[in-house]
Amino acid sequence: MGQLRGIAVVAHSGGPTQVINASLAGVYDECRRHEEITALWGAQYGILGVFEEKFFDLYRQDPSVMAALGRAPGSAIGSCRYKVKPEDHQRILDVFRAHNVRYFFYTGGNDSMDTALKVSKLARESGYEMRVIGVPKTVDNDLPETDHCPGYGSGARFFACAVRDIGNDLRTLPRRVTFMEAMGRNAGWLVAAAALARHRSDDPPQLIYCPERPLTVDKLLADVEAVYRRDGYAVIAVSEAQKDEKGEPFGADQAIADSFGWRVTGNLSHILATIINQRLKLRARSEKPGLLGRSSAGCVSENDRQESYLCGQAAVKAAVGGVTGKMVSLVRDPGEEYRCTTGLTDLELVANTERLVPPEWINEAGNDVLPAFVRYAAPLAGPIEPLPRLADQPAAG
Amino acid sequence: MGQLRGIAVVAHSGGPTQVINASLAGVYDECRRHEEITALWGAQYGILGVFEEKFFDLYRQDPSVMAALGRAPGSAIGSCRYKVKPEDHQRILDVFRAHNVRYFFYTGGNDSMDTALKVSKLARESGYEMRVIGVPKTVDNDLPETDHCPGYGSGARFFACAVRDIGNDLRTLPRRVTFMEAMGRNAGWLVAAAALARHRSDDPPQLIYCPERPLTVDKLLADVEAVYRRDGYAVIAVSEAQKDEKGEPFGADQAIADSFGWRVTGNLSHILATIINQRLKLRARSEKPGLLGRSSAGCVSENDRQESYLCGQAAVKAAVGGVTGKMVSLVRDPGEEYRCTTGLTDLELVANTERLVPPEWINEAGNDVLPAFVRYAAPLAGPIEPLPRLADQPAAG
Repeated sequence: MGQLRGIAVVAHSGGPTQVINASLAGVYDECRRHEEITALWGAQYGILGVFEEKFFDLYRQDPSVMAALGRAPGSAIGSCRYKVKPEDHQRILDVFRAHNVRYFFYTGGNDSMDTALKVSKLARESGYEMRVIGVPKTVDNDLPETDHCPGYGSGARFFACAVRDIGNDLRTLPRRVTFMEAMGRNAGWLVAAAALARHRSDDPPQLIYCPERPLTVDKLLADVEAVYRRDGYAVIAVSEAQKDEKGEPFGADQAIADSFGWRVTGNLSHILATIINQRLKLRARSEKPGLLGRSSAGCVSENDRQESYLCGQAAVKAAVGGVTGKMVSLVRDPGEEYRCTTGLTDLELVANTERLVPPEWINEAGNDVLPAFVRYAAPLAGPIEPLPRLADQPAAG
Repeated sequence: MGQLRGIAVVAHSGGPTQVINASLAGVYDECRRHEEITALWGAQYGILGVFEEKFFDLYRQDPSVMAALGRAPGSAIGSCRYKVKPEDHQRILDVFRAHNVRYFFYTGGNDSMDTALKVSKLARESGYEMRVIGVPKTVDNDLPETDHCPGYGSGARFFACAVRDIGNDLRTLPRRVTFMEAMGRNAGWLVAAAALARHRSDDPPQLIYCPERPLTVDKLLADVEAVYRRDGYAVIAVSEAQKDEKGEPFGADQAIADSFGWRVTGNLSHILATIINQRLKLRARSEKPGLLGRSSAGCVSENDRQESYLCGQAAVKAAVGGVTGKMVSLVRDPGEEYRCTTGLTDLELVANTERLVPPEWINEAGNDVLPAFVRYAAPLAGPIEPLPRLADQPAAG
């Protein structure tokens, strides 16, 4: 495979994360090391920037800004939620041909990997030599063929810290029920991370519901009542993806569908808090940090940031080495100590496939996760310090 | 005024903050310097700990734990929302007499200062010598007679950072309307802090509604539509205390009242997002970080922490010096550079009085705050770094 001289395009797809820019920095730094990559263009607002030929010429940006962006949350070049249609693949290829774009790095989740796959196939079929590599990115952690996804570690860290902090607040102002709502399309990876908030045996949250299991109102009431009787308060982690007994989102009547046909922005935790108010006559409230969970500048997993950078770098290395039609993956060492390297996997195995929390990591009652999940997720989120406490019982008086 | 030998009790009231423990540490450290204070007891769960004679003997706690707690959010000794009744004042005094409690430091907001006042009057009337000092604490910043309240700076910092981070996320995934909901009982101090998120002229949030002004649905629709047409997206900061045109909370039908008669935990931002969805046919979502805004360990204003510590310390110094019936206040130097010292104010002036955002700090249209507010709040929240950006326009292609 000879050297392929031309322009590289990098694009972002779907929701930004706290570390998607770290991947961008990895792509940028590695591209600059290869003189055959004559320019690196960032498509503005994801694939829409390709259609509209709106690109940031990243080699012309101030390198110190690029370095600063590599540590900043959000997407520096912009992203979109456009669902690529079959006829769009030809348009993408036409734009790439017109500008001698020979490298395409597409950063995103399941849908993006499908687009990357289609573009790489079309290029091959039409005899246009180019290298297409997917860079994984999703706070939802639902891509298969990789140990985990860049973005997840920081999202997990944020939610675990939020549960720890709100749990600490509620422990000291007792007699309340609080729902903490995590993001999530279908998988429960983020809500499960609430388990990382626990250090002592009586630390909240007392209940964690993964959307992999349907939840009934009766089960919820029984669980909350039992916890409240035991502890005098309850912190409950739920996922915005949680389905009710009919397989419908809680509060489906208030939800609307986006262009992917997914339900967006429901009102789950408020609905559940209202049910607890009405049925158990307990004061209940809900907290929905929502997008903060993927955008918070102040709560980032350092492992996640470094691995995201490595994924961007690995994508360029692979492409320069002649690889196409692959996604970079993260491969965890089997040893006790956490160590992770990058690998490559076929886009075909990743496109449009979703990985859920495995059933053996959820407890039988369906209201908590098991230690195997904590062992998996803890190094991804990074160390979450316990908050100090006084001796448990008052001694004076 | 001679030396008064006896036990000191410290109690917390109302919602914890990120720095209420810093005040506790200030009380603790200063008490230890005065041998006439023979013990410092922390009432467990606020005034309920006094009724039930449940106290932590803080001198017997590990000093390193006390120091660590001084930097931790939440209330180390526990707090409560109990509304003290007239007959309770006698009970409080009886318990204090029984244990030779001669110093009472009550940390809280308006209601707590009323209780402190009543207890101090009753002690004087019944000839029991004791010193009662209020330590201000409220994320709501609504106490009069003080430049600002310990807890507010960190709450303001959290909300400003949350708006900055979510704004940065939304700027790069445009065509959305997002409501960010701040805490707040009646005053708009916290929601106004969203203005601190802005660094560039086009930084979100584009709209900030203080609950000091009623909001109509028609005004909201007109404002959001204008912003959306101009910018292609909108970030709107609202307060959970926001009232509608009838002076009722938005979504009042879903609200319930707590034992103070206040409305609790509504669903404001979701209701507003739904209105935007339905009336403007724009995708809208809401974010409600809620209690995180007063409990987040990772987002604390260093000024706020130090001042909270100083307030605790000043309370003890005043009491030891013979003062009673006062609340510690924060007094800002009139100079350009921010500098703040502590003062003392009569509990009578503070009890049950609420300070709102002054009308002259809210713009005429009632959808933003003015620079005078930003000058007031910026040093309290501490420096909020702007997030980096690429050059604004794509240059290639």
